[in-house]
Amino acid sequence: MPATQTAILLIDCPDRKGLVAAIVNFLVERYDINILNADQHQDAQLGLFFMRVEFATEDPLCTQQSFREAFEPLALQFQMNWRIEFTETKQNVAIFVSQYLHCLADLLQRHQAGEFPCNLSLIVSNHEVARPLAEFYGIPFHYLPIAPETRSQTESQQLALLAEHNIDLVVLARYMQILSPTFVQAYPRRIINVHHSFLPAFVGARPYHAAFARGVKLIGATSHYVTEHLDEGPIIEQDVTRVSQNDQLPSLIQKGRDLERIVLSRAVQWHLEHRILSYSNKTVIFA
Amino acid sequence: MPATQTAILLIDCPDRKGLVAAIVNFLVERYDINILNADQHQDAQLGLFFMRVEFATEDPLCTQQSFREAFEPLALQFQMNWRIEFTETKQNVAIFVSQYLHCLADLLQRHQAGEFPCNLSLIVSNHEVARPLAEFYGIPFHYLPIAPETRSQTESQQLALLAEHNIDLVVLARYMQILSPTFVQAYPRRIINVHHSFLPAFVGARPYHAAFARGVKLIGATSHYVTEHLDEGPIIEQDVTRVSQNDQLPSLIQKGRDLERIVLSRAVQWHLEHRILSYSNKTVIFA
Amino acid sequence: MPATQTAILLIDCPDRKGLVAAIVNFLVERYDINILNADQHQDAQLGLFFMRVEFATEDPLCTQQSFREAFEPLALQFQMNWRIEFTETKQNVAIFVSQYLHCLADLLQRHQAGEFPCNLSLIVSNHEVARPLAEFYGIPFHYLPIAPETRSQTESQQLALLAEHNIDLVVLARYMQILSPTFVQAYPRRIINVHHSFLPAFVGARPYHAAFARGVKLIGATSHYVTEHLDEGPIIEQDVTRVSQNDQLPSLIQKGRDLERIVLSRAVQWHLEHRILSYSNKTVIFA
Amino acid sequence: MPATQTAILLIDCPDRKGLVAAIVNFLVERYDINILNADQHQDAQLGLFFMRVEFATEDPLCTQQSFREAFEPLALQFQMNWRIEFTETKQNVAIFVSQYLHCLADLLQRHQAGEFPCNLSLIVSNHEVARPLAEFYGIPFHYLPIAPETRSQTESQQLALLAEHNIDLVVLARYMQILSPTFVQAYPRRIINVHHSFLPAFVGARPYHAAFARGVKLIGATSHYVTEHLDEGPIIEQDVTRVSQNDQLPSLIQKGRDLERIVLSRAVQWHLEHRILSYSNKTVIFA
Repeated sequence: MPATQTAILLIDCPDRKGLVAAIVNFLVERYDINILNADQHQDAQLGLFFMRVEFATEDPLCTQQSFREAFEPLALQFQMNWRIEFTETKQNVAIFVSQYLHCLADLLQRHQAGEFPCNLSLIVSNHEVARPLAEFYGIPFHYLPIAPETRSQTESQQLALLAEHNIDLVVLARYMQILSPTFVQAYPRRIINVHHSFLPAFVGARPYHAAFARGVKLIGATSHYVTEHLDEGPIIEQDVTRVSQNDQLPSLIQKGRDLERIVLSRAVQWHLEHRILSYSNKTVIFA
Repeated sequence: MPATQTAILLIDCPDRKGLVAAIVNFLVERYDINILNADQHQDAQLGLFFMRVEFATEDPLCTQQSFREAFEPLALQFQMNWRIEFTETKQNVAIFVSQYLHCLADLLQRHQAGEFPCNLSLIVSNHEVARPLAEFYGIPFHYLPIAPETRSQTESQQLALLAEHNIDLVVLARYMQILSPTFVQAYPRRIINVHHSFLPAFVGARPYHAAFARGVKLIGATSHYVTEHLDEGPIIEQDVTRVSQNDQLPSLIQKGRDLERIVLSRAVQWHLEHRILSYSNKTVIFA
Repeated sequence: MPATQTAILLIDCPDRKGLVAAIVNFLVERYDINILNADQHQDAQLGLFFMRVEFATEDPLCTQQSFREAFEPLALQFQMNWRIEFTETKQNVAIFVSQYLHCLADLLQRHQAGEFPCNLSLIVSNHEVARPLAEFYGIPFHYLPIAPETRSQTESQQLALLAEHNIDLVVLARYMQILSPTFVQAYPRRIINVHHSFLPAFVGARPYHAAFARGVKLIGATSHYVTEHLDEGPIIEQDVTRVSQNDQLPSLIQKGRDLERIVLSRAVQWHLEHRILSYSNKTVIFA
Repeated sequence: MPATQTAILLIDCPDRKGLVAAIVNFLVERYDINILNADQHQDAQLGLFFMRVEFATEDPLCTQQSFREAFEPLALQFQMNWRIEFTETKQNVAIFVSQYLHCLADLLQRHQAGEFPCNLSLIVSNHEVARPLAEFYGIPFHYLPIAPETRSQTESQQLALLAEHNIDLVVLARYMQILSPTFVQAYPRRIINVHHSFLPAFVGARPYHAAFARGVKLIGATSHYVTEHLDEGPIIEQDVTRVSQNDQLPSLIQKGRDLERIVLSRAVQWHLEHRILSYSNKTVIFA
């Protein structure tokens, strides 16, 4: 009995008549696939089409390589941005963290509980405080301190580590350093950050302090892809919780941690499950 | 230039290989349609497939009648439950109400603001209190008082009114009478009720009193299709809001009214836009 | 049997030892009151104390005038900002509205349902579209069109109307004109506006468009007191709802209307029940 | 300079005129205290009064023992249930857990981050799986397996452990065994459980399965004090999250875990901060 493999096809392109039929027919005729899930989205304003198809096939010839070659003519015809991801290929993930451990502890526990289909390859930090937690969960820990004068040198070390481990996704779990444009460009739409405010409110440093000063009645957190423009990348997920005058700054920060954990973990999971398409500084979430 | 019409095809059937391709190819080859939106859902446990396709066509031959005939063979082959709805056909809606007017006032204002693509054909009530509001918005109002001994007679009058106006959907906007099985069976999955609790908690009468007595920290409201089993029909939408010890019964009831308005109006809109599929006492919402 | 009257005492002042005892003892010894509710709040950072006491008394000598004189020495001693409000005195409210009627319709229905303890004295608009609704609910309607060259003249007419009707509170229910500093200063902390965003995100015009462009995953609405700085007054209430890629601009605007209705009506109710203290561009809500 | 200590006075009693003044005057005159926070609540229906006063004093004579004696006459006069808690006295907490570790991991991380003012004295489990986590955080772990025939014997061992460590609070962090009435009565209002549904919906076993079968649109979790009646104790906190047809059972369970963590941790924190008063199978939360 042939092995079944599942894969995810992600497409964005100009919206054109016949597009869905062409894609579906290709899949069925070429690889005798079974569609497990198909989601599509149109941006009517921009005339764009987005699709995510999760399918199963028993065809041993349906490999990453062969699929790429076979699908390319159709992709060219419809001017597609596209990719194919086979779910048996586990992605490699690196987590960057500084001194606050709540997001890291949460990610590690979720990974252990099986929520994330990935290898946690390494944890990088500019402090030592996360080392015991990393070691408890058996994830290699790399302490790379950052000083102003050695910043670019440290970043080179970080990039070398990522390259060495074939990292697919970098998760900034309250990593309090700003990445250089060089770093960001090396991992386009593959670096996820959590910002502790409801963006675009309170960009920049100390957003809880700013929220407290403004007297908002809800505080938020935002996970987003990192771009060269700080706190301006495509938003993946946001959530909020209610605060009142009883919440002085410490309690506001504590409530915020719950939000940070949730929006970051959702973003990581959706990314790993290939549920996010990003365009025009927005995201489409096929959740 | 030919007129464009849009239609919605709704399907549920056993999940089978080739299903999506067969449906898409039928639409494209037969009527040269343009898919505006396509959503599908699988219930893996039950092996069921659900689909909603919204499409546009300029083919003047694509009528309700011709489509039905043309699609039927495919539907038979895949054992589909299905229907086709043309969006130019406005549905006729009747609202039933008793003495609380907040849901009615909300529905009328939303209809006037263009949120509901339907004709509001009539308002039926067992009290006179809603008449001025109905008249203000120009909707025919029918006062049909209910006494225990004349209940079945009144229900016949109600059903006659609904038949006379070709009513497609009955909305119970805090209508405090129980409909007979005969009535319910005449409008399967076409009667929407709002229950003032987070079902299945607090079924039956006086749910706010029960919620208050139990000391819950959130109160809810639920919109659902009416079946012969009171408060047990397929749930369409639910929402909750936070309460505390500061909320005595009256404030709890007032907060609940906001929820009732919202879950009922969402259910009505989704039904009118043919976004709801119901099976196995659940709903699939293509929102 | 003497009549019982209830009153609300609102205080903010520097936090000092003995404050609560001094206030409570004054009330009990002077007017033999019964405390119905007492809430207090400290801002530890600023060293401020806030209190709301709702009390009942049968003492016929406890009048607005006599209370003011009797309490003043204590108030001076503790440097209090304070006021006393007797609940039998109904406040007079004016609603300003432009062309969107959803907030107005909602406020009128709530007032009719008894949610607001106030007189709705008048509705002012720069358009005629709200007139039928005002007349249906029996509220005097004043059409005062606004043209650039007559703006200050119209504002004088508005202020004259407010003065003539002894207006205590002005509610801007999607009123799309900016009030002059003169107007705002005439009603400090007595003008409530609803802004259709989660402030401070998306200040200024067309916030839904801005939210859509930024690709946020939640949209919000904010009710706040109006100050001379547009969209920067003390926030009273905020709420949000989830949006996705399926929400194009019109659906995002529609979802937002539900939020606007809710945050505005809560703010109005809290203000009328004397539950809001404002300081340092924030609000304390004794809800 | 004398040391400052802070304490919390919790009272519930029949509502009577003069109550607040009597309490406040006692505190001020006897111990020259400074009120840090005072919250009160009335249940108008039942004629009950609830109060929480957090105060600071430099009086070295204000000890648990002396306060108890000094306050008792007033307490008798007003028929109070009351207690005084000095914040320098850290409570001892035991966590019971079975095989799901997400709540335990969360509680341990929060404790480490300083969110809980308590000693985590021990972790008790009927499985070995939690041992590494307990040891990582340095909390003594006791493996007490449970078999039907040795159940009462094991429970005696558990109670002996709790007694030996002077445990003040037992937290059931997804502990899947039912406690006997004897156990429950030994720790009245001092055992907190998390139930993975929005109570009173889906009492009993497998609530996520029941919620899935009913087709609800929101799932919930509830933290509550344990009483002899399963899932019927006073509710402390509840929260919900949205689900859709895309959430099959595993994803529903995963989303639920986020709720469980949050409602349980809030309950534990509020209990430790003496913010909960329980009466008539409800709770008053002074948050």
